[in-house]
Amino acid sequence: MVAWRAQLGGDDVSQPPISRYSPPDLADVPKDVRERIEAVQEKSGFVPNVFLALARRPDEFRAFFAYHDALMEKPGNLSKAEREMIVVATSGLNNCQYCVVAHGAILRIRAKNPLIADQVAVNPLKSDVTPRQRAMLDFALKVAQRSHEVDAADYEALSRHGFTDDDAWDIAAIAAFFAMSNRLANAFAIRPNDEFYIMGRERRG
Amino acid sequence: MVAWRAQLGGDDVSQPPISRYSPPDLADVPKDVRERIEAVQEKSGFVPNVFLALARRPDEFRAFFAYHDALMEKPGNLSKAEREMIVVATSGLNNCQYCVVAHGAILRIRAKNPLIADQVAVNPLKSDVTPRQRAMLDFALKVAQRSHEVDAADYEALSRHGFTDDDAWDIAAIAAFFAMSNRLANAFAIRPNDEFYIMGRERRG
Amino acid sequence: MVAWRAQLGGDDVSQPPISRYSPPDLADVPKDVRERIEAVQEKSGFVPNVFLALARRPDEFRAFFAYHDALMEKPGNLSKAEREMIVVATSGLNNCQYCVVAHGAILRIRAKNPLIADQVAVNPLKSDVTPRQRAMLDFALKVAQRSHEVDAADYEALSRHGFTDDDAWDIAAIAAFFAMSNRLANAFAIRPNDEFYIMGRERRG
Amino acid sequence: MVAWRAQLGGDDVSQPPISRYSPPDLADVPKDVRERIEAVQEKSGFVPNVFLALARRPDEFRAFFAYHDALMEKPGNLSKAEREMIVVATSGLNNCQYCVVAHGAILRIRAKNPLIADQVAVNPLKSDVTPRQRAMLDFALKVAQRSHEVDAADYEALSRHGFTDDDAWDIAAIAAFFAMSNRLANAFAIRPNDEFYIMGRERRG
Amino acid sequence: MVAWRAQLGGDDVSQPPISRYSPPDLADVPKDVRERIEAVQEKSGFVPNVFLALARRPDEFRAFFAYHDALMEKPGNLSKAEREMIVVATSGLNNCQYCVVAHGAILRIRAKNPLIADQVAVNPLKSDVTPRQRAMLDFALKVAQRSHEVDAADYEALSRHGFTDDDAWDIAAIAAFFAMSNRLANAFAIRPNDEFYIMGRERRG
Amino acid sequence: MVAWRAQLGGDDVSQPPISRYSPPDLADVPKDVRERIEAVQEKSGFVPNVFLALARRPDEFRAFFAYHDALMEKPGNLSKAEREMIVVATSGLNNCQYCVVAHGAILRIRAKNPLIADQVAVNPLKSDVTPRQRAMLDFALKVAQRSHEVDAADYEALSRHGFTDDDAWDIAAIAAFFAMSNRLANAFAIRPNDEFYIMGRERRG
Repeated sequence: MVAWRAQLGGDDVSQPPISRYSPPDLADVPKDVRERIEAVQEKSGFVPNVFLALARRPDEFRAFFAYHDALMEKPGNLSKAEREMIVVATSGLNNCQYCVVAHGAILRIRAKNPLIADQVAVNPLKSDVTPRQRAMLDFALKVAQRSHEVDAADYEALSRHGFTDDDAWDIAAIAAFFAMSNRLANAFAIRPNDEFYIMGRERRG
Repeated sequence: MVAWRAQLGGDDVSQPPISRYSPPDLADVPKDVRERIEAVQEKSGFVPNVFLALARRPDEFRAFFAYHDALMEKPGNLSKAEREMIVVATSGLNNCQYCVVAHGAILRIRAKNPLIADQVAVNPLKSDVTPRQRAMLDFALKVAQRSHEVDAADYEALSRHGFTDDDAWDIAAIAAFFAMSNRLANAFAIRPNDEFYIMGRERRG
Repeated sequence: MVAWRAQLGGDDVSQPPISRYSPPDLADVPKDVRERIEAVQEKSGFVPNVFLALARRPDEFRAFFAYHDALMEKPGNLSKAEREMIVVATSGLNNCQYCVVAHGAILRIRAKNPLIADQVAVNPLKSDVTPRQRAMLDFALKVAQRSHEVDAADYEALSRHGFTDDDAWDIAAIAAFFAMSNRLANAFAIRPNDEFYIMGRERRG
Repeated sequence: MVAWRAQLGGDDVSQPPISRYSPPDLADVPKDVRERIEAVQEKSGFVPNVFLALARRPDEFRAFFAYHDALMEKPGNLSKAEREMIVVATSGLNNCQYCVVAHGAILRIRAKNPLIADQVAVNPLKSDVTPRQRAMLDFALKVAQRSHEVDAADYEALSRHGFTDDDAWDIAAIAAFFAMSNRLANAFAIRPNDEFYIMGRERRG
Repeated sequence: MVAWRAQLGGDDVSQPPISRYSPPDLADVPKDVRERIEAVQEKSGFVPNVFLALARRPDEFRAFFAYHDALMEKPGNLSKAEREMIVVATSGLNNCQYCVVAHGAILRIRAKNPLIADQVAVNPLKSDVTPRQRAMLDFALKVAQRSHEVDAADYEALSRHGFTDDDAWDIAAIAAFFAMSNRLANAFAIRPNDEFYIMGRERRG
Repeated sequence: MVAWRAQLGGDDVSQPPISRYSPPDLADVPKDVRERIEAVQEKSGFVPNVFLALARRPDEFRAFFAYHDALMEKPGNLSKAEREMIVVATSGLNNCQYCVVAHGAILRIRAKNPLIADQVAVNPLKSDVTPRQRAMLDFALKVAQRSHEVDAADYEALSRHGFTDDDAWDIAAIAAFFAMSNRLANAFAIRPNDEFYIMGRERRG
């Protein structure tokens, strides 16, 4: 618990705030929310600020992470690294510092590639991705930017690269979920934890 | 149950599909999801197509509606009509037919105003809203469109109209949630039910 | 005459103004303009506000409606409903509340379809239109938005759906006329009459 | 009559076409339209191509020029040079070659200034205009580009430079009329007459 | 020397300034920079204002003109007129008054065509250019506007019109150099010399 | 020399190309260009790919780096870290992978701050910069994006933060130079060296 309190900046007045909204007092956080936060801290060694920022609203916290896990942790034809690619590409488009930095770290780790996150965040069109992944990102970026123009031709383009309709749903849903997530992080000024910047940058083999 | 099947178009081959994705077979829908659908049918007299479209993915269905209810049904300083105004204004910006038509109906009913939904959908800046509601919509539209530019001045503008920081969170979160919802409905081509178009259009006493 | 005065809101101080510019006194309106207004009132049961707003400038009134009728009432291969589709689609793009609401009503009536206007106003790409109508709307929207990029390929696309060069002129001219009309209605804040919102919404037999 | 025929390119096969649509045969042009064309030829020494292009549709021709004259030739506080400034600035924004070149010539002549047209066409914000004219152009450009955002503050800005509400109507109506005109010229590929390019370029005394 | 002083407006207080930044005193200008300025004056009969504006920073002056000459004066498959077309088209896109007016003059002279500069500045898509030149301009405009989307297909499109990879480099480099130049002229408010407006406008034999 | 050849990927066929254009053979590179390249290699331990890519055109190489050094290495009130901030912010806007990654590394080193580059690249508005630096970035981003709208008010905003007119020139010129540089790197697909990604990421003491 002490570690988490330190995360909250309670002991370090010089630390910039984690969000425009102060994180909640521990006493106000329901047990299931607190356990989820403690679990992520145990696993990662720190608590990503989005957990602290959203804990202020337990119902929204629960729905947010339930949705996140339903899309990012479920089985399917998209690898976990590919899902993170979608997150980083669409978050770059939306100028979301938190999501690019945090999910960039996860992408580097899941793809075992220290370069891919910065490439995809700045310009997905010139990244070291396969043609299949490029088609996936094209679809995701269209959903993020001009979803009202999505039509049958977009699904056919995915299908030519072996994506099923269920894969297309996954791509669209991840892009849509982070359309929400980017706006929350931007509007609430959620700050990426310093830890994310360096994660997964060690050179391959 | 029969009524719902009919909703699904099972008996009327001429009915356009409710979405690019076929709704699930009843047998595949978990009990809690089915009960939620039956409850809305009982209350509204029909099943809004977004329930049928998302039922295909129970985990996402549950998270989506949990999130929706946490934002749209919770107590707070924003009236339910005002929350629907945010939905209609941002959904108009995103050219989301389903959300404009369905939430336009709800807005008309909650605001007891047969004109407001079409006004807000086409041009929120020229709608019959109060200056306070106009400030609310300005913030929501900025979150929808340029969330990376949201800053302290935007919160101050809200505060000048009496909105608390918690109200600001509500406005931003609703705009963000429908940023997701609009993209899902657009990408999956979810069709608004015919019923929505006429609801709440009766002239005020 | 009394009916028209009532339209002007003279007796109802709570009625919002029909435009930023007050409508003219009857005494100042030339006979031909007044007769045109009375004719439309007789036919429709009310005077659409654009007639009152423009009556302030009789020469512009005459030219505006002469142009309007030359495009919207002339014989040709485009049905009257199709012409209104063009109006509603391009007016939606230009966020023109007056034109979307007023011509949306006319479209519903001419197309005998209570759904089509809202569909086309929000997202023409997902509306219940034929492929031929979709090609018509694609051309109209390009004229409305990026007319400097119109080229031979656009005319060929129309031709593949059976549109002649004269039909193409009609489509372009309607889109161009409402590019003007939308800007007038927006700049002058012309308010759609309440009557329009409900017209043509009765369900098809 | 012979002079006009020559204008039509009948004798010079190498001349590029005046528009995507061939100009009408003289025999098909109603007398009033022909007389208008002959009058402009007499006055200017040539027939501007927009007259020939629109003559194909006499009703539209009549309405177009009636509207044009109602806005550009009427008395009022805007000088004729200022009206042409509005035309050139908004036509530059819309990338309308015909309108920039033809009305640029008229602007140079009316303003007795050989530089002003090119300045205004490329960047009105850096042109040799007075602060009052700059306010006029700011309003016109907003009507051309984002008319749905025009509000009371825009009228107040004009008022601070001495513009009345009637002047504001003139500015908005000219910007709106050329929003139409630019789209017609662009969609129909109306070619500016060679004569316009050089007119009014002689250095001021 | 006297002539240059006069260019600087030293004797004519009514002349608008050549830039937001005053041109340097002759005493402060290094010999090589002064000689370059005197050479252009001798050749052209006047000193284009960009030379005076940049002379304030000799190192930047030298690098700017060295770069300019490396791209615009070098041998290659693009004619000098075609290089100027690229300049005028991309400068029109960037609303750069100085570059459109000054390079428009050079384009008219090099192309021996009094119409081409105004055409290309306002709408390159409707200019009197060959299909090969159109492909060249399409590529240049994409580099100017959306360079991050340039890909192999763009090079192939050039290749179909006979452009080599070295020609493509030239086109891209000219568009990129004027992306810089337009921003400098705009930010520093460099005024086009009056002389440019009329140059090259005489009708072809 | 051997080290440089290795940089060129001559010995490692699996290395992705450094650019769409092959780097030149050493035999074709003039002595001064080669010496510049060897100097940077000695200093940095590797040759940034932009040196190799541009070496193909020695005159352009010389002008490019002379310009670069005149802006980035000169004395002045902007610190070297601040100049790099301008580069990273405007290159992020232009989606230039090479410039964001390479200059991001230099920024981290010069600012002795491992977080600042990613922050500025994704969203300068939410970065750990001082209000003075924020004003600097606002001006730079306006020059990069809408230079034709730069006016006296922009210079006054800088002045309120203590920037002189010469500082304003520096900011504008750096933004303009990288407007060019971003387009070259994007059009030629210059690949950031792997080394840049990790440089300067060590945590501050």
